Amino acid sequence: MPETFFIVPESQHNALVEAAYRSRGFLADEAAEGARLCAEASRHGVRTHNAIKALHLDHLFGSGSQGCVPGAQISVAPSRFAAARVWNANRKLGQPTAYRAMDEAIALADRYGVGTVSVDNAFHYLWGGGYVMDAARRGYIAYTECTAALAEVVPFGGKFPTLGTNPHSWGFPTTAAVGYPIVIDWATSVVAMGRVQQLKREGRPLPPMAAVDKDGNPTTDPNAAVSLLPFGAHKGYGLSLINEIVGAMIGGSLPTLRSRWETDPSDKHTCAFFFQVIHPEAISGGAFAKGRDQAANVRAVIEDILGHGNEKCMLPGQVEADWARKSASAGGLLFTEAELGAFGEMAQEAGQPRWEASAFKSVVL
Amino acid sequence: MPETFFIVPESQHNALVEAAYRSRGFLADEAAEGARLCAEASRHGVRTHNAIKALHLDHLFGSGSQGCVPGAQISVAPSRFAAARVWNANRKLGQPTAYRAMDEAIALADRYGVGTVSVDNAFHYLWGGGYVMDAARRGYIAYTECTAALAEVVPFGGKFPTLGTNPHSWGFPTTAAVGYPIVIDWATSVVAMGRVQQLKREGRPLPPMAAVDKDGNPTTDPNAAVSLLPFGAHKGYGLSLINEIVGAMIGGSLPTLRSRWETDPSDKHTCAFFFQVIHPEAISGGAFAKGRDQAANVRAVIEDILGHGNEKCMLPGQVEADWARKSASAGGLLFTEAELGAFGEMAQEAGQPRWEASAFKSVVL
Repeated sequence: MPETFFIVPESQHNALVEAAYRSRGFLADEAAEGARLCAEASRHGVRTHNAIKALHLDHLFGSGSQGCVPGAQISVAPSRFAAARVWNANRKLGQPTAYRAMDEAIALADRYGVGTVSVDNAFHYLWGGGYVMDAARRGYIAYTECTAALAEVVPFGGKFPTLGTNPHSWGFPTTAAVGYPIVIDWATSVVAMGRVQQLKREGRPLPPMAAVDKDGNPTTDPNAAVSLLPFGAHKGYGLSLINEIVGAMIGGSLPTLRSRWETDPSDKHTCAFFFQVIHPEAISGGAFAKGRDQAANVRAVIEDILGHGNEKCMLPGQVEADWARKSASAGGLLFTEAELGAFGEMAQEAGQPRWEASAFKSVVL
Repeated sequence: MPETFFIVPESQHNALVEAAYRSRGFLADEAAEGARLCAEASRHGVRTHNAIKALHLDHLFGSGSQGCVPGAQISVAPSRFAAARVWNANRKLGQPTAYRAMDEAIALADRYGVGTVSVDNAFHYLWGGGYVMDAARRGYIAYTECTAALAEVVPFGGKFPTLGTNPHSWGFPTTAAVGYPIVIDWATSVVAMGRVQQLKREGRPLPPMAAVDKDGNPTTDPNAAVSLLPFGAHKGYGLSLINEIVGAMIGGSLPTLRSRWETDPSDKHTCAFFFQVIHPEAISGGAFAKGRDQAANVRAVIEDILGHGNEKCMLPGQVEADWARKSASAGGLLFTEAELGAFGEMAQEAGQPRWEASAFKSVVL
């Protein structure tokens, strides 16, 4: 169904988001990097993880709670390993932490072929796909995962939520091959809790095996759903465990205590991030069939996968790339009227003028 | 339902498997490493990927076809990257290739914190979980994936099989924390084609959304099923794509040509392997809550996940660890009478005496 979007110039979007972060005490560089990732999300049509969500998360779990400290400085832990860094983010805002960690991992990959950056005491980085997409656009194979802010997901075979929605994000430098980076990016739950609330408002059922009721029994009734289930039974459960084990090895504490600053103050309540970058030349044997180079070989493989009657299949990252083209064509970031209203609340908080729909050009998409 | 298992001493198992590989022209070290991984699979109760399967795969796609060359030597490609190796396996048997690649990745991780080994022109390594479990038992975080031998899986939204069952395997050094390595290891299809055939024989239906018929429509009828589906819709599809993209970057050609040596001889028909090892100290911030060390912190996190009413949940790798205890307690590898019969065929081929059930002690489990 066609929908009307208002075209907000990116500079105007970023100025407001930066002002909102500044009004909460964040430094200029933090606010700018915070806004940059929000703009990337909106440019790519990732409407679940835009600036509205970012400032809301910061309010709930970040500088409005004890999870995020404006102006915090990252400290680098000593390490005897040349291609691996460990940072203590000291609860710095997630977006600047993540951008800097990915830059560091890229520098390591340039030198060693592969590099990892592990981050303890981190605060929500909003949208992992944005960082791997950015690195992939710059020519690298990138990966990130983190422990999610809250334990909302029930382990396979269990009844009580002790796992986060624990996302994984992979980006591949496929622009030369298919026109955009292939980005595989999702939570390990079937749906997010926000989706449950949306379906509750709309009076529509949940997909099967997406949530459980208070007794741990699967339900498709959004009113009865209290916790989420991992996707793919034991397989998604295993993928979610990876985040918890890696997080625990980095320095994170119990998942059921995460972000719950009202509990035991002598425990840790922060998230952990893991970033990894591989230089594509560092995995290339160089001997491609039919005289192809690496990019042409990736293109040939993708064409084979999406051929033979599979032409309607999508590649992960394709929807986001298509939306970025629409944003570029419109000359700005695209928001619905309801979203403009939510930016109005942000403007009020930051002492900035509200955005009026009448002030923006619009496009029906 | 209790089942009778015959206890085959590991040395006797390995001697027969080595003889079978030797009879096909493999060198002594290849045969020994080939048998070693088969013994590991059987010790851990991985009955789908034991020696019977290994020799069968070699017959179908390996030395019995053109996919595997006994005595092939691995060549190391030049690389400017210190922590990344690229090998050309020249179609060497998969198990020795994989053991050596994992050893090399461990040596890189010891030095750089993280190391990768990418392998072009590879032949089936049987059971990825075995290599990451071995590395995890030795104290490392290990990962491997490969492109599967055949294109049997339909991309999400498609109708024709152009993807392999493309497995991923992660191993974590959790022996000090939970008593055994946590090993997350599965194909990206809902089920394997062998499972479809088994259900067909037993007259039982497939799980929903596991397979499609000749027109690409989902079916639960094993007689109508011709191709497999990825698990978790677009999420499993994305995970399967990772293997194809990484394989294409290493040097693999079109998935629909893989192992099909009867097609275009000027193209490539081999698999690709990717291995990665991380030293656990290379991701440790060292600042664990409550004065814990890294292993105690992992244990505390796992106890939190499996607490709160989730005590019946399993950890990935637990079933395999339990079976290894049964094998150790029995004093050998455990096989059913039907499996002993299949080893008989192997013995006949290798000019060795057949195994008679009456020659082995048995145990009911």
